[in-house]
Amino acid sequence: MVKKIYLVGAGPGDVELLTLKAVNILKQADVVLYDALVNPEALDFCRPDVIKEYVGKRKDRHLKKQSEINELLVEYGKTHKVVVRLKGGTPFVFGRGYEEVRAIKDAGFEPIIISGVSATTSVPESFMIPSIDRKFNDSYRTITGHDIEVFSDIVTSYHSRENLVIMMGIYHLKEIVNILISKGFPLDLPIAILSKGSTKDASKRSFTLGEIEEKNDDFFTEIRSLTPAMIFVGASVNSKYNS
Amino acid sequence: MVKKIYLVGAGPGDVELLTLKAVNILKQADVVLYDALVNPEALDFCRPDVIKEYVGKRKDRHLKKQSEINELLVEYGKTHKVVVRLKGGTPFVFGRGYEEVRAIKDAGFEPIIISGVSATTSVPESFMIPSIDRKFNDSYRTITGHDIEVFSDIVTSYHSRENLVIMMGIYHLKEIVNILISKGFPLDLPIAILSKGSTKDASKRSFTLGEIEEKNDDFFTEIRSLTPAMIFVGASVNSKYNS
Repeated sequence: MVKKIYLVGAGPGDVELLTLKAVNILKQADVVLYDALVNPEALDFCRPDVIKEYVGKRKDRHLKKQSEINELLVEYGKTHKVVVRLKGGTPFVFGRGYEEVRAIKDAGFEPIIISGVSATTSVPESFMIPSIDRKFNDSYRTITGHDIEVFSDIVTSYHSRENLVIMMGIYHLKEIVNILISKGFPLDLPIAILSKGSTKDASKRSFTLGEIEEKNDDFFTEIRSLTPAMIFVGASVNSKYNS
Repeated sequence: MVKKIYLVGAGPGDVELLTLKAVNILKQADVVLYDALVNPEALDFCRPDVIKEYVGKRKDRHLKKQSEINELLVEYGKTHKVVVRLKGGTPFVFGRGYEEVRAIKDAGFEPIIISGVSATTSVPESFMIPSIDRKFNDSYRTITGHDIEVFSDIVTSYHSRENLVIMMGIYHLKEIVNILISKGFPLDLPIAILSKGSTKDASKRSFTLGEIEEKNDDFFTEIRSLTPAMIFVGASVNSKYNS
C-alpha cells in the first residue's frame, strides 16, 4: 500500500475555522510542517510528542526554500507514519501546494488533500464584504499581485460586475493601482486593504483608487507593515448592509 | 443587545469539511434553515428538538422564493434564540447570502457570518485540480454561468495563465463553450464538468472545448443530469501530478 502524506488547509487564522477533517488528522499526526500563515494554536490538537517544524516564509526572510520543504516532507515520509503539511487557507489556492504534491508523488507517496477555508473568500466575509452579491456582481477574480507584469497582462479591462481579490500584492500596491487606473478602472472605485483577517489583529483600510493614486511613499511604507494582507477592489467593499 | 442570526457555511458536501465553529453553532441551534446543497448529516450535530426547515431551491423547482426564506429567517428570529441559516459552501460566494444579510439587518437583527469551505476551490481540489499552480497559472476567475449575457460581457479574452471556475453554468454549457471559443479560447483547452464534488457520487468528465463544440443535444441533456456541477476551464484540468 502506498503511503499517504497529507496537505491540510488550516483556514484563514481563526482556529475555530479548522475543519473536522483537519482536526482529526492533526490528532493522528507524527510530524507537522507548518508555515507563517497558520495559527500555532492549531497545533494544540496534536499529541504532545508530535514533531512540529516551522517552515514559514516571509518577504525578505525565506527561512526555508520550497525545495527544502519538499525534501523535508519526503524525508519525514520515509521515517514517520502520519506526516502533515499544514498550510494557511486551502492547499491549492496559492501557497505552492501543487509543487509539494509533485514532490510527494515523485518520491512514491500518495498526496491527500484536505481542503480548508480559503482566506480569499473568508477574509472578505469577516469584514462583511461579499465576493458575490447578486445585486452588484456576478464574478470575482482571484489573482496574485506578486508579479506585476503578469497582473497587468491578465487584467485587461474593467467590468463593473466583477470584484478583484488580489493576494500577495501589498508590496506592489502603488503599481497595482496605477495599472488598474490605466486599464479604465474608475477613480472612485472602492479598494480595501484587509489585514490579518479573522484574527484578533484584523483591520480594514478603505479608499478609492483615486485616493491611493495621490498617496506618497510614507503611506505605502505604512501599508506594507499590514502584511499579511489582501487587496479587494470593487463595489462590494462598501456593501456593509447596503440596501 | 441586538439579537444575532447566523449564516453558516456548510462546505461542499462532505460533512467532515464542516468547521469547528459551524458545528458549535449547530449544537446550540433552535432552528436551522438549510438548502439543497447542504449534506443532511450536518443536522445530526443539532439537538433532537431542533426545528429543521428545508428551504432548498433547484432548477425548475423553487420550493421557496428568496423573499420567503428572508421572511422565515426574520420570523424565527423573533420567536427563537439561536436561528441558523445553513448554506452550501460559504455564505458570500453565490447562494444569495448577502440578500439574507440585508433582510436580517433591516429587521433589526445582527447577521453573523461563519465562513465555510467553498465548493469553488474545494471541489477542484477533491479532483486534484489546482485553482493555482504557479507553474501554469496566476489567477482564477469565479463566475456565474447562469446569465449568459453577463458571462459574455465579463469574459472578454483568453489568458493562458488564468483558470475559469464557472458555477451554475451546466444548463448553458453549449453557449458557454461557444462564447469562449468566439473570444479566442483555444479549441484544445481542457474543460471539466465536476459533479457532486466531495460526496460519494462525485464524478469528473474531461473534454477539450473543441470536443464539446462538436457534441449533439443528447450529450447536453446527459450533462444536465449531473447537476449540481461546476465547470472548470484551463490547463489545470489535466494537471494530476504533472511534472
